[in-house]
Amino acid sequence: MEDYKIVEIKEDITSRNNLFAKEIKKELLERKLFYINVMASPGSGKTTLITNLINRLKNDYKIGVIEADIDSAIDADSISKNTGVKTIQMHTGGACHITCQMSYEALTALGMDDLDVIILENIGNLVCPAEFDTGATCNLVLLSVPEGDDKPLKYPLMFQVANVVAITKTDISHVFDFDIEKAEKNVHMRNPNIPFFVTSATQNKGIDELEQYFRKEIDEFIKQ
Amino acid sequence: MEDYKIVEIKEDITSRNNLFAKEIKKELLERKLFYINVMASPGSGKTTLITNLINRLKNDYKIGVIEADIDSAIDADSISKNTGVKTIQMHTGGACHITCQMSYEALTALGMDDLDVIILENIGNLVCPAEFDTGATCNLVLLSVPEGDDKPLKYPLMFQVANVVAITKTDISHVFDFDIEKAEKNVHMRNPNIPFFVTSATQNKGIDELEQYFRKEIDEFIKQ
Repeated sequence: MEDYKIVEIKEDITSRNNLFAKEIKKELLERKLFYINVMASPGSGKTTLITNLINRLKNDYKIGVIEADIDSAIDADSISKNTGVKTIQMHTGGACHITCQMSYEALTALGMDDLDVIILENIGNLVCPAEFDTGATCNLVLLSVPEGDDKPLKYPLMFQVANVVAITKTDISHVFDFDIEKAEKNVHMRNPNIPFFVTSATQNKGIDELEQYFRKEIDEFIKQ
Repeated sequence: MEDYKIVEIKEDITSRNNLFAKEIKKELLERKLFYINVMASPGSGKTTLITNLINRLKNDYKIGVIEADIDSAIDADSISKNTGVKTIQMHTGGACHITCQMSYEALTALGMDDLDVIILENIGNLVCPAEFDTGATCNLVLLSVPEGDDKPLKYPLMFQVANVVAITKTDISHVFDFDIEKAEKNVHMRNPNIPFFVTSATQNKGIDELEQYFRKEIDEFIKQ
């Protein structure tokens, strides 16, 4: 029986990735470009939430979107059609996460010159994307009601690297055994004091608050 | 800008993993031990479906369960309490998938001598576990209604490596825009002729059919 030494390889890759992430963050700061990395499980409502937020922000900020998927262009089609903002589809060719290399190539392909905000919809995966800093200014992590309030206990790193957490799909809470207070407690166990929003993008619940949060963060970032 | 050569490393690891998987499959066949690897997104209803199936099968087969999680023992507690079968909790220490090495260590830790069926509840992840053959006799892939019917298009490999697919949580179909026929078409686009079940474990919908499927598969395997 053999040991594949996966851990050592991964440590090399992530430490080099982290160095590159610092360079991206520096460039984004110089460009006054706020970069949001949205991470969550498959089917947690990322596209719907992003669409709602963009339509609230697009008159005040120039926004671009990077859709990352292993295959298909379903989300890019949807975002482009429902918001009208510049959108590109990145295919990872099977990869389960976005490295800085992939992130930077996507930023370049989208074009950074005339934008204030770029939103990356990361691959639906509550594990691997958490290990790879994309160089983003802000990690927005979503947890949908159907997934259950225990997920921060099972997938700790994702909630540790988050800068803001939003519970999604709360409009269908009545058919699920999901305890918002328990979810908040579990999130704060992994990441004390992190901003925590309770939302339904289809019902516009909690989206005003999330919008105000991002307006404040973006404005403070640009003023630096 | 650097290329991390992740693909090459991964190919080495997966090809060695595949060799080890063949050894495990050979040993399981000699032992007449049917090994089911359950894969799906976080919160897709794996534990509930497994619990229901075990309670239908446990009088006729000696069953053991391996719960794989990055952290916590929530699912092992639940399975053990609700079925009474022998269960172990494996912690992956951050890893996003189960290699053959991890699979074999868990099989050994659980003990294979007096069992007919072992069920592995893999990490909630629709990407990475698909790349690593665990040596299982059967890959059961679940897709829950809240995740959406488009997931086989976005996460192709998981549905390609599946031996059987079950749609879960269909009891709450009325609050979601999920098209069962479209889901079946998308699954069969990735994997033609694969057995496809439409279930609700809490309402016992489609579970008779899934139970009969596994009885037939297990009995044929044991008779080999």
